[in-house]
Amino acid sequence: MSFKAPRGTVDILPEESVKWDYVEKQIKDICRRYHFEEIRTPLFEHTEVFQRGVGDSTDIVQKEMYTFEDRGGRSLTLRPEGTASVVRAFVENKLFGNPIQPVKLFYFAQMFRYERPQKGRMRQLNQFGVEVLGSANPAVDAEVIDLAMTCYKELGLTSLKLVINSLGDQESRSDHRQALIDHFTPHKDELCKDCQTRLTQNPMRILDCKTDRDHPAMKTAPSILDYLNDESRTYFEQVQGYLTSMGIEYEVDQNLVRGLDYYNHTAFEIMSEADGFGAIATLAGGGRYNGLVEELDGPATPGIGFGMGLERLLMALEAENQDIPIDKSLDCFLVAAGSEADKQAMKLMHSLRENGIQADKDYQGRKMKTQFKTADRLKAKFVLVIGDDELEKQIVTVKDMMTGDQKEIPMEKLDETMQQLLTGGK
Amino acid sequence: MSFKAPRGTVDILPEESVKWDYVEKQIKDICRRYHFEEIRTPLFEHTEVFQRGVGDSTDIVQKEMYTFEDRGGRSLTLRPEGTASVVRAFVENKLFGNPIQPVKLFYFAQMFRYERPQKGRMRQLNQFGVEVLGSANPAVDAEVIDLAMTCYKELGLTSLKLVINSLGDQESRSDHRQALIDHFTPHKDELCKDCQTRLTQNPMRILDCKTDRDHPAMKTAPSILDYLNDESRTYFEQVQGYLTSMGIEYEVDQNLVRGLDYYNHTAFEIMSEADGFGAIATLAGGGRYNGLVEELDGPATPGIGFGMGLERLLMALEAENQDIPIDKSLDCFLVAAGSEADKQAMKLMHSLRENGIQADKDYQGRKMKTQFKTADRLKAKFVLVIGDDELEKQIVTVKDMMTGDQKEIPMEKLDETMQQLLTGGK
Repeated sequence: MSFKAPRGTVDILPEESVKWDYVEKQIKDICRRYHFEEIRTPLFEHTEVFQRGVGDSTDIVQKEMYTFEDRGGRSLTLRPEGTASVVRAFVENKLFGNPIQPVKLFYFAQMFRYERPQKGRMRQLNQFGVEVLGSANPAVDAEVIDLAMTCYKELGLTSLKLVINSLGDQESRSDHRQALIDHFTPHKDELCKDCQTRLTQNPMRILDCKTDRDHPAMKTAPSILDYLNDESRTYFEQVQGYLTSMGIEYEVDQNLVRGLDYYNHTAFEIMSEADGFGAIATLAGGGRYNGLVEELDGPATPGIGFGMGLERLLMALEAENQDIPIDKSLDCFLVAAGSEADKQAMKLMHSLRENGIQADKDYQGRKMKTQFKTADRLKAKFVLVIGDDELEKQIVTVKDMMTGDQKEIPMEKLDETMQQLLTGGK
Repeated sequence: MSFKAPRGTVDILPEESVKWDYVEKQIKDICRRYHFEEIRTPLFEHTEVFQRGVGDSTDIVQKEMYTFEDRGGRSLTLRPEGTASVVRAFVENKLFGNPIQPVKLFYFAQMFRYERPQKGRMRQLNQFGVEVLGSANPAVDAEVIDLAMTCYKELGLTSLKLVINSLGDQESRSDHRQALIDHFTPHKDELCKDCQTRLTQNPMRILDCKTDRDHPAMKTAPSILDYLNDESRTYFEQVQGYLTSMGIEYEVDQNLVRGLDYYNHTAFEIMSEADGFGAIATLAGGGRYNGLVEELDGPATPGIGFGMGLERLLMALEAENQDIPIDKSLDCFLVAAGSEADKQAMKLMHSLRENGIQADKDYQGRKMKTQFKTADRLKAKFVLVIGDDELEKQIVTVKDMMTGDQKEIPMEKLDETMQQLLTGGK
């Protein structure tokens, strides 16, 4: 077979798409209750948006972006993550001028990363995410974490671990940065090539390195928590206070560092601890990014958000054996014999559907017996038979597939009768 | 401002996204009733999928695609239309082997076309579409047209025009093609450059040319309807018979030609006739494409589908002054004074939301009076006050913003009370 979906991408077929639809509906309802509103940004941006908004020194920008020139010679990049695009849209559309602040946004969006495809790591992936722009209140950090946890809990996940950390403000980060440089410089030659670059560009990200994670200097590395100034410490304590009052359990992990350059204060990750979920256990990650709006030429505006992988969410539901409630039945299947009956069936089906009833029929010119088999396969609740006899009497024979009961219903009463039968006479 | 969305793309902000969400929900419900199931294909495909599946000689493939090489040197193209991707997925995932045929699929997807942006013509556009694969029954053509018309009608559009045509089968098309070549060759030098190429590659598409539309040879061009063989004519008559029996009005337009190479038999377009809708009146277009599945290396399988522009659908609703019903109110807004009250408010808000109630609060440390103003702005139905007094008594003062009534509710009864109040005691 010569035509295949590009490597690292998949088709979501009907059997799976119903699950996606369910999960999205549930999450959208949570967003409604938490009073977040939807934003949709273009699939691609000018490349500079991500260079500035994600950070030139990140793996994403250096290695993983789908960047190309359009026919006018401008460099465009398929969105590799959600925050930079939303912040660009916030600035361009002047949402900082909205009378209500903060602006609480959510999105469902595909992301694109050129990585080696593996289980749970695709080149096109789907994320749900939120961004709150315009408030530096620790209660917002707690609200955002609460929303993420609520999504997982309401969908039925129980083996969850929430890990939080503080990266401090500019001053704290800067002191910590110097301490990290001092700590790792004597070991520079023992670190991987990426970490050698990180040592000067963004030493905090050494703590996140998968290659060097067992190096002895990692264990003794200075913790950001020892470098928080009073303001940053108080902020972090307040976030924790809100989480506790809301009954949300968490652990503090001083090695939790997010991959993006502009994070400060609160950083968090949610992991699945379900058996057999696999090595990549992170379900969602986020944090505060005061300063990013200015980086994208907007007015000084604090911000916080998270991104949640939907492929991994579905994997976690599966790992915990949490079934998604899907109705696989069909309201009615019309069985018609002959071309006149067929025309009549099309007319009746149009009317049933217009009246809110789900209906389908055979299109392959099959015999009545085979049509009944199709009805069975589709788990039809009712079969509506239109044969010569029915045509002549202008009736439909309605068969209840559960009970086997049959009734003759005048064609002009069919919609009403089916509505009654399907709602159980309610 | 230096960071802008790429030319021909727009951000869909909350005020608009609620409309999109509503329209998508309505259409998804229609798909459920018509028993179509959702498919989601990747945003990009190997470029050959569109070269083969849309046709090398089309404007889309020749001028309008976003084509780029990935980091592995493979040529990828952002989806310019929906059919080729769905057919590729149908073949790759062997859906032709499903026990139930035809396979009835729908999709919501962004499309990408590098065109000069203008009103109603964007470089990133959103489409709803369906594809039915595996049946050559004219009833399916009628069903697909019926579904498209139902979407518009149920959303409230009334000024609609449905135009249909038949392009016939291979034999009919081939005869007609020769007649067109014979007709236009004497005028070759008077036609535009594109049409000169079309004359040899796909002469039928000359009839669709915007440059040459007033050339006198256009009016006298041979009509496909005069070249339909018996089978094609019967097929077309049957489609019309089904449409009539379903009460769907239509016009036959013998000049209706779809831009894609692989169409045959039924072609259709739905136009808006609303005043002030603008020159580009086409809302949706589709047709039958028996032969396309083989073109993409699948087994011989008939197919039919349509694509519906959602930007234009929203424009048409606006042109017809059809308001989309959007609830802009908020269930409750919590007003808290002081940091202890604030913590308590976060706890109560978490619990309200957990119990299905929409809630929000102030995060900007504003005075109570200003918080009340925010509640007004957000059209809060209830304001829940937590001050020093309430904290001490462990109550919440609940104010009904419609009537002005106030009640003191014990904190532990708040969820239950609010559920009752919001459902009007039902």
